[in-house]
Amino acid sequence: MKSAQYVGNRSIDIGDSQSIAPGPGEARLEVAYCGICGTDIHIFHGAMDQRVQMPQIIGHEVSATVAEVGPDVSDVQVGQRVAVRPLKFGQPASFDKGHAHVGKNLKFIGIDMPGGMQSSWTVPAYTLHALPDSLSMQHGAMIEPAAVACHDVRLGEVQSGETCVVIGGGPIGLLIALVAMDKGAKVILSEVNESRLALAKSLGMEAVNPMQQDLVAEVSKLTDGGMADCVFEVSGSAPGVEVMTELPNVRGRIVMVAIHPQPKPVNLFKFFWSEIRMIGARLYEEQDFDEAIRLADADKLHLDKLITEVVPIEKTQQTFEAIDANPDGIKYLIQCNA
Amino acid sequence: MKSAQYVGNRSIDIGDSQSIAPGPGEARLEVAYCGICGTDIHIFHGAMDQRVQMPQIIGHEVSATVAEVGPDVSDVQVGQRVAVRPLKFGQPASFDKGHAHVGKNLKFIGIDMPGGMQSSWTVPAYTLHALPDSLSMQHGAMIEPAAVACHDVRLGEVQSGETCVVIGGGPIGLLIALVAMDKGAKVILSEVNESRLALAKSLGMEAVNPMQQDLVAEVSKLTDGGMADCVFEVSGSAPGVEVMTELPNVRGRIVMVAIHPQPKPVNLFKFFWSEIRMIGARLYEEQDFDEAIRLADADKLHLDKLITEVVPIEKTQQTFEAIDANPDGIKYLIQCNA
Ligand SMILES: [Zn+2]
Ligand SMILES: [Zn+2]
Repeated sequence: MKSAQYVGNRSIDIGDSQSIAPGPGEARLEVAYCGICGTDIHIFHGAMDQRVQMPQIIGHEVSATVAEVGPDVSDVQVGQRVAVRPLKFGQPASFDKGHAHVGKNLKFIGIDMPGGMQSSWTVPAYTLHALPDSLSMQHGAMIEPAAVACHDVRLGEVQSGETCVVIGGGPIGLLIALVAMDKGAKVILSEVNESRLALAKSLGMEAVNPMQQDLVAEVSKLTDGGMADCVFEVSGSAPGVEVMTELPNVRGRIVMVAIHPQPKPVNLFKFFWSEIRMIGARLYEEQDFDEAIRLADADKLHLDKLITEVVPIEKTQQTFEAIDANPDGIKYLIQCNA
Repeated sequence: MKSAQYVGNRSIDIGDSQSIAPGPGEARLEVAYCGICGTDIHIFHGAMDQRVQMPQIIGHEVSATVAEVGPDVSDVQVGQRVAVRPLKFGQPASFDKGHAHVGKNLKFIGIDMPGGMQSSWTVPAYTLHALPDSLSMQHGAMIEPAAVACHDVRLGEVQSGETCVVIGGGPIGLLIALVAMDKGAKVILSEVNESRLALAKSLGMEAVNPMQQDLVAEVSKLTDGGMADCVFEVSGSAPGVEVMTELPNVRGRIVMVAIHPQPKPVNLFKFFWSEIRMIGARLYEEQDFDEAIRLADADKLHLDKLITEVVPIEKTQQTFEAIDANPDGIKYLIQCNA
């Protein structure tokens, strides 16, 4: 019964995991695997010290088995294998217009509340999505990032036959590309890391290194001048923002997936001139988890190729350090019950 | 038979207007009035000298009477009163996805080809929209800018009961506000000129001077914290771009109407955080002219209040100078057949 707790100063301690009896509307889980997200890395780097309450059990990409349910919980059964949608909905505000997943009073479980890098975890039962028996628990821990990708592609309204450009080939960028391909889109991925580029190519997408090739010219060539119907900015970089407006065709869409903490110069003229659109996308809704589970179970997401390493919870600190040292890596999973 | 020709160097000469016999698919018009657009002012200032072929007859906000039609033109009759949609469609490109009004090979009549500030004007017949008898020719010259506003509000998908903020209270900003009000939206206009603010208030909208009041706080107060469902950036200013992302609520929209020649810093984080959207909007489509004519004819646009002055074509030069000197002015019309 262990937990990985961020204690500040690029340090993660291994502590106890309390077994908390589930209250009304809650379930207690035995966590199988918890993926390490870019957000967890940000926390590790101290970038979110204002928000997290140290010591903080982090992690939110979880597969688990239901161990206990609260008195009034009827739609979840003990023994059920589940993925967790780590959103605790708050009081609705008129500002939210019913979109609870980005509502004013939303709490993100694993940042604002204890997360899933622990053996025993008690969460609201409404966060749980049943996993099919045919889906492994390791793949189950990939459902959360896959749901992000499903949400991004859904909000981008990607249609069969369209061309998508994904700027940035980390886990989310690759998953977006795979989900868009499942929708019947042609996908061009822009990424600077050669190992990730090779992986992208092995997954059947076009891949361009914008440090070595002119991305705009390549997209033009690959589309006979038709350019991109939908661009996903997942890089969080200034060059990504600079190039994103050069890629869409008339009424093309840009889905803003990356977090850009500071304002960046944007070519607003291109929005006007070609009536392009930008769509902010954050997290996921219930249907995105359903879709992610469906796609993972149908093996559309090649999750084996995206999992770089599986490590025991005791090695969490070393694994965070290894991620910082290995730009080739994609997804690391922490095994929480050994 | 006169014309107003931009000859460079902030100069507009009065020349002849050639009566050009309409070829196949064309019509020759006797122009009644031609409004002066912000674009015409840009041309006058030399900002578009790379694009216009001097001497250039400018102007594109026209009401006219059909004087002659080409041999094969059957859907337009001599004597018909019309407004002109000043777009000459070019060869379609795959890049355009069928959106000819912002297509790669579009020519804008009055910039790329001779415009409407002349007594006799020959144009493609497909550019013509019949005006109802009940609509005056002066109001007919306002249909083009009103169609811009109809397009912007349509692309912004403004719904009854929504709150819109319009940043910038020139002719287009005021028309957007009036069209949005017709859709049943509550409108808050942000404008720095006191005379325009007074006009906006007299037209029934809320009006805020962002130099004197905190626009974000005012919008919050006027909406009980609900903020804006749709924001129109019409100011073309850096402060406009800075504030535009602070106003929308969750999944709120920003319609990018203004021309921003240089990239400007944009708070991309807000797009992500509240899943806000930005929609580029340029010019108009056929249905926007139909809607503008309908609204003008129903007197929803208060066009009398928006027409600052009507001047004979001989005074075009002085009128452009007067516009530069009078920030209170809204719309000036040139009378082209006296
Ligand atoms: Zn994550
Ligand atoms: Zn105009």
